Amino acid sequence: MLISESTLRAFTKNIFLSIGCSDEHAVLAADVLIKSDLRGIDSHGVARLIGYVRLWEKKRINTKPNITIAHETPTTATVDGDAGLGLVVAPFAMKLAIQKAELYGSGWVSVRNSNHFGIAGYHALMAVEKDMIGFAMTNASPLVAPTFSNERMLGTNPMCYAFPAGKYPPVIVDMATSAAANGKLEIAQRLGKQVPEGWIQDTNGNFTTDPHALKKGGSLLPLGSDREHGSHKGFGLSATVDILSSVLSGANYGPWVPPFVTFLKPPTDPVGLGIGHFVGALRVDGFRPVDEFKAHLDNWIARFKSASPVNPDQKVIIPGEPEMEAEADRKKNGIPLVDAVVNDLNGLAEKFGIGKL
Amino acid sequence: MLISESTLRAFTKNIFLSIGCSDEHAVLAADVLIKSDLRGIDSHGVARLIGYVRLWEKKRINTKPNITIAHETPTTATVDGDAGLGLVVAPFAMKLAIQKAELYGSGWVSVRNSNHFGIAGYHALMAVEKDMIGFAMTNASPLVAPTFSNERMLGTNPMCYAFPAGKYPPVIVDMATSAAANGKLEIAQRLGKQVPEGWIQDTNGNFTTDPHALKKGGSLLPLGSDREHGSHKGFGLSATVDILSSVLSGANYGPWVPPFVTFLKPPTDPVGLGIGHFVGALRVDGFRPVDEFKAHLDNWIARFKSASPVNPDQKVIIPGEPEMEAEADRKKNGIPLVDAVVNDLNGLAEKFGIGKL
Repeated sequence: MLISESTLRAFTKNIFLSIGCSDEHAVLAADVLIKSDLRGIDSHGVARLIGYVRLWEKKRINTKPNITIAHETPTTATVDGDAGLGLVVAPFAMKLAIQKAELYGSGWVSVRNSNHFGIAGYHALMAVEKDMIGFAMTNASPLVAPTFSNERMLGTNPMCYAFPAGKYPPVIVDMATSAAANGKLEIAQRLGKQVPEGWIQDTNGNFTTDPHALKKGGSLLPLGSDREHGSHKGFGLSATVDILSSVLSGANYGPWVPPFVTFLKPPTDPVGLGIGHFVGALRVDGFRPVDEFKAHLDNWIARFKSASPVNPDQKVIIPGEPEMEAEADRKKNGIPLVDAVVNDLNGLAEKFGIGKL
Repeated sequence: MLISESTLRAFTKNIFLSIGCSDEHAVLAADVLIKSDLRGIDSHGVARLIGYVRLWEKKRINTKPNITIAHETPTTATVDGDAGLGLVVAPFAMKLAIQKAELYGSGWVSVRNSNHFGIAGYHALMAVEKDMIGFAMTNASPLVAPTFSNERMLGTNPMCYAFPAGKYPPVIVDMATSAAANGKLEIAQRLGKQVPEGWIQDTNGNFTTDPHALKKGGSLLPLGSDREHGSHKGFGLSATVDILSSVLSGANYGPWVPPFVTFLKPPTDPVGLGIGHFVGALRVDGFRPVDEFKAHLDNWIARFKSASPVNPDQKVIIPGEPEMEAEADRKKNGIPLVDAVVNDLNGLAEKFGIGKL
């Protein structure tokens, strides 16, 4: 089913209004989800709407949050999200980071007491629009085991770095620090397919190709998959995200992160408040004139696009390029939704007495 | 051969004095290399001394640099290393970042016109000593191919994040963004061993286990090894390091980075000056009181150390832990050097007419 951006945006806003968000917050939260669907990251868009509603029903999301600055210096701050939607808390934090960068060259905000913030790229791109370099990361449901362990201790903990270019679209590195994101397992589950070795392990710590292994106590593997191929590096990156997002802000970290997935229960012995994010903005002209930077980044992009391909039909892909292409296509032709998602969304419409898709 | 820290330090300082460094610079450059040997990162310590001398002989290193701040805001700066040793240029940049963080909460310095800076961890730890979070990265000799390419376009481009803990040693994530660092290939070459699939590819873009493949035109692979296991993420991280270090500062990037390895020639059409680094310092108390942060990081470390192990004999390793253990051991018992390195060092001693090891 192909749905226009405007229809899906209005529908999504209505759902957020139905659970008690202000108009401003409903518009913003919908914008984050729709941006994900436009960019082809289907796992993080409206497909997650039912998940946010479920957390609200469990009273784990406060749709009327009083988001506050708990601590700050000229270029740093800790934000308390008051258990609000990460979709509105993270943009608040990034706006603050950008304000600080405008005054002092850079701004860095660690966030506690938040929830799932959608795609990291949305937040990092807010900085890019101001000719700044954007940084965004978050911790997440504990599903990933550290190297040498079979215990789920970390989230897929994405990190995003975004850079403004000139004639090309921005370079956007937006990646889970696990070998594969949970969304890829969900796709394999729907298709009844096995997954490659190196994505997940069973409870004994052996590679498995069963996409349902997580629900049986297995775990995702860090980027690198095993020690020999550098999984300790994926673990290190995930740890970095966890510490910057939560040890720094006072949120929950590691296995204490309250989960978004339905098959895990929240820990009863929290070490902090909600989940954590970390965002930053760095002015390009704090280092060199913006036009010089953009000209060289364009040169960087052009050179990498022309790198000798292994297969002539598959050129090097610049980070962020496929998402930009998806956005151009979907803005014009509509957003494709699979039946399962449409059914979920229409179920929500029925629940709240609003028009179906 | 086991050599005491003090003997090796004095010897190394003498070599740097012999190539024209000031006493201050010779002490500092030796400190960076000795720190690497103490921490068990043998590939980046005195084993590289002959490489620095070789670059100096080729007039690619200026041992009397006038290191300058080319551009700055309260919390950002671009440093020009004047073709100096990265071993002295990077600490200059990190000192500046720390000064800015002391005043404004954070400091970020991009560096151009530099050379190889040793281990990233040395520089990041300078911030940790001030109760700050340290960031350090650098680009390097083009040896890594982007996903889908067989062309050497990027260095092993390490990134380091370092966090001060309380009763535990700091957490230090210090990692090449390739599946394996070049030093690991050199070890396999010396031992006449094959390397695992997923570390390198041949000129046709096929996995190879030949550790000599790089000298035959092959390339290292990004962390993740292949597309299915996330090599596009390793590529994205490496690109991030390259852009922050060089597109931001005005250094050479991608395939234009002047190489440290002997089997590559410097490009004749530079796009900037020397190689680039990026360092940063973020005050912990810009977010929450230092003692709170350290108590929670200690809790994080303790919890991860006790994560359920796959094999009871191999517990989870906290990033930075093995290096701290090596440092304690080698400070006490001396630094082991293989014969090839001792021969190289004594060759240098002969060349400069100083005492052999």
